[in-house]
Amino acid sequence: MTDFTTARPFRHDQVERWDGETDVAIIGFGAAGACAAIEAAGAGARVTLFESGSGSGGASALSGGEIYLGGGGGTDAQRAAGFEDSTEALEAYLMMAGGPDADAVKVALYARESLNHYQWLRDQGVPYKGTFLPGKIIEPAEDDTLIWSGSEAAWPFSETARPAARGHTIQFMGWGGGRKLVDILEARVRALGVDIQTDARALSLIADAAGRVTGVVVRIDNQPRFVRAQRGVVLATGGFCMNQDMLRRYTPQTMRLNDPIGENDNGSGILMGMGAGGDAIHMDEFFTTCPWIIPESLVKGIFVNERGQRFINEDCYHGRVSRTMLDQPGDRVFLLVDNAIFERPLDLARIEIAAVGETWEEVERELAMPEGTLAHTVHTFNRYAAEGQDPIYRKALEWLKPLNEAPFAALELNIRTSFFSFFTLGGLNTRPSGEVLDRAGEPIPGLYAAGRTTSGLPRWGHGYSSGLSLADCTFFGRMAGRAVASAQPT
Amino acid sequence: MTDFTTARPFRHDQVERWDGETDVAIIGFGAAGACAAIEAAGAGARVTLFESGSGSGGASALSGGEIYLGGGGGTDAQRAAGFEDSTEALEAYLMMAGGPDADAVKVALYARESLNHYQWLRDQGVPYKGTFLPGKIIEPAEDDTLIWSGSEAAWPFSETARPAARGHTIQFMGWGGGRKLVDILEARVRALGVDIQTDARALSLIADAAGRVTGVVVRIDNQPRFVRAQRGVVLATGGFCMNQDMLRRYTPQTMRLNDPIGENDNGSGILMGMGAGGDAIHMDEFFTTCPWIIPESLVKGIFVNERGQRFINEDCYHGRVSRTMLDQPGDRVFLLVDNAIFERPLDLARIEIAAVGETWEEVERELAMPEGTLAHTVHTFNRYAAEGQDPIYRKALEWLKPLNEAPFAALELNIRTSFFSFFTLGGLNTRPSGEVLDRAGEPIPGLYAAGRTTSGLPRWGHGYSSGLSLADCTFFGRMAGRAVASAQPT
Repeated sequence: MTDFTTARPFRHDQVERWDGETDVAIIGFGAAGACAAIEAAGAGARVTLFESGSGSGGASALSGGEIYLGGGGGTDAQRAAGFEDSTEALEAYLMMAGGPDADAVKVALYARESLNHYQWLRDQGVPYKGTFLPGKIIEPAEDDTLIWSGSEAAWPFSETARPAARGHTIQFMGWGGGRKLVDILEARVRALGVDIQTDARALSLIADAAGRVTGVVVRIDNQPRFVRAQRGVVLATGGFCMNQDMLRRYTPQTMRLNDPIGENDNGSGILMGMGAGGDAIHMDEFFTTCPWIIPESLVKGIFVNERGQRFINEDCYHGRVSRTMLDQPGDRVFLLVDNAIFERPLDLARIEIAAVGETWEEVERELAMPEGTLAHTVHTFNRYAAEGQDPIYRKALEWLKPLNEAPFAALELNIRTSFFSFFTLGGLNTRPSGEVLDRAGEPIPGLYAAGRTTSGLPRWGHGYSSGLSLADCTFFGRMAGRAVASAQPT
Repeated sequence: MTDFTTARPFRHDQVERWDGETDVAIIGFGAAGACAAIEAAGAGARVTLFESGSGSGGASALSGGEIYLGGGGGTDAQRAAGFEDSTEALEAYLMMAGGPDADAVKVALYARESLNHYQWLRDQGVPYKGTFLPGKIIEPAEDDTLIWSGSEAAWPFSETARPAARGHTIQFMGWGGGRKLVDILEARVRALGVDIQTDARALSLIADAAGRVTGVVVRIDNQPRFVRAQRGVVLATGGFCMNQDMLRRYTPQTMRLNDPIGENDNGSGILMGMGAGGDAIHMDEFFTTCPWIIPESLVKGIFVNERGQRFINEDCYHGRVSRTMLDQPGDRVFLLVDNAIFERPLDLARIEIAAVGETWEEVERELAMPEGTLAHTVHTFNRYAAEGQDPIYRKALEWLKPLNEAPFAALELNIRTSFFSFFTLGGLNTRPSGEVLDRAGEPIPGLYAAGRTTSGLPRWGHGYSSGLSLADCTFFGRMAGRAVASAQPT
């Protein structure tokens, strides 16, 4: 059997027979692929969807089913909760969240279209109860559908973008609504007559001598099948958090982490895209989080690194705080709590009690930290917190409380042993239409991508907010589906 | 005229006429290209060297001409200075300096061959006086040829690898010996009969349908020339520190820096290599430094960030300290000095005095830092320093001194306005032979690379040491030249 590789396309002129033919071939049946399929099929194109696993899902189905939405005066849920969210505020927040190379064009489009996208999701059958659950939440424990899901109310974001809760979760009882979200999208895909091929792994793109992508080689029943895609191929295979070799070469910081969020996120779409000439950007970026904000009272604690220094305002999004932990020297950080706020952390988080003491000096000694480090940090924090301020890190008043009720404890979050889930944010450089760009900034004819196969709205680990990835997958998946359906046949 | 692009190779079967023919085409006439040419020509191959500028040089000629060498008991200069450097110590240091994905195979080879490489350099005519200049040096002020050029004697490196000075500088009066180094290599290149084409910019690689690189399109006299390279092409065009668009897409942290070290480091070799299927890795990594260690007494100061926290043992290599400055919040860090150690910094460094006071509390106030931050940091440091220790950052005793002689000052190093030179460390993934690997780890026939066009010995900004890049350029340039000269003609 011929060897196929993701490293470069199979040559169109070497195809001996075409085993199948379609307008649009979509690789990957997570939320991005599903939304691309819905739009492409809805526009009248013949669509074939190839999924390497035995069914729909991907990382989307492992998520909370939360989508970052707002602007335009606010969704029904936002308005009911008193948030008159503006498009400007949403755009400003997304630009900050996108980091030093935020994609201003995608951000502006998404901010403008966010309410329409919310309506589209409802039109597909995604239910939203419309109730807001205040406080620090990872996912709603019951079936509420709006939460704070980022750093909106925290410094420095709150100074630039008027804060609003924007995490819109599918109505679902408990955690894990992502599976339900994908099921609803799958039902739409099926209703539209999309040809769904499961256990069908893409082996290689097919491209002609001019570099135009004309199809894909897919392994079905252990045989390579040559599929002609007249209008184009959409890569939606997710990121590469489950490909150790790619992690090592592109984002070695993640090698300390043990808990990738993915089903089959082996980076094959990114590799195929690069092999066809696509530009992969910000490949070092990743999201990570440890669910340390449960119970919520722990947010009133302060983090110090192994040198006893604080390093962030702890009221930021838990993922931003967690990402910053990886920037600290060594593998451990400590969440310092007093008796008033201590509650047992989530078992899942694998957070251990590293030291307990009647004074902060005792905790400092027990952690073998030099005198005048951790204890001084807490005393300084306490002095200002008692005055209702945090001039160094600007933690908001709501979460500010002197840690002065003995006994005291240091809870250890260990990068290598605690639960730090992660996924990658680097990927193909695309236009808002999903067209994959080459390294000279020109689109590669016939090639589209969406979701974590691309570098999208979320592209900076320090700015990630819950719901950004699914917002990007669903909205720009749709854009890719529309664009490829209307592309000229090749 | 046909459009040529670095984004993908020109098609071999589209070449209408060959304007030239050679065994080996080398792109770029810095140290890497020169060394590749010397070895390839020395092995009997016909070599043509294309340089986009009007003469040899590249970033190598802008350097101090310093090469990181040692092991095997030490060079003559090392032994004379009392360093019995072992291959194991050199290898251990290079592995640490290479960071989380150090290339163990290249490191082991270089450590083993380092003394032979030193001899080879001398055989080419590179002079080494053999005298050691102790202390904290950026480049020798006169013509000494051995200095400490890394973090060997500093924690944590000193705990793992037995320290030795390894920065071997070409004998040259004053700074900037890199020009002389390249001149000597150029003379050898000419003596060996290499065909040197200047003002000859490579526009595109040429590859056949199977992906084999067969030549290069070069612009000469404003015309594209199609050059057939029978045995292969060596990319040695340097890094991409002068390509703003690449910096933004791959290493946006550098966008704050103003002083690239390069002549024409536009990343074209990396782009051409990627376009031919090559894998570019660790593209986010870069070296940066501000020459703050002059005068040397300043090393006895301590750095704090905008929050008044120390962040590193200041006796590390100046580039490691500088790189860590970019990890701090905000754009400014402060070097705290007392009257005993203050001397005026180098003008070139653009370091300003931000605050002066009779007490550290006064300095803290003048910098508008909250009470109990900077001043406490200094007092804690002073208390331990008086006892001859630095339990928090482990600065070595030699550089440890309480900062207790008024007046006191905070010198500001500003990422955006001080002199932070930088160059990129990400590049093509290569074997020690210079063979460029694709994303599946397979070599691309006919394609080689060396120097900063590759991800080589130096590939982690926090571990960089002076002389690592030229060590990599010269040694692995040689390896690439040998390998391509003995490759089967295509």
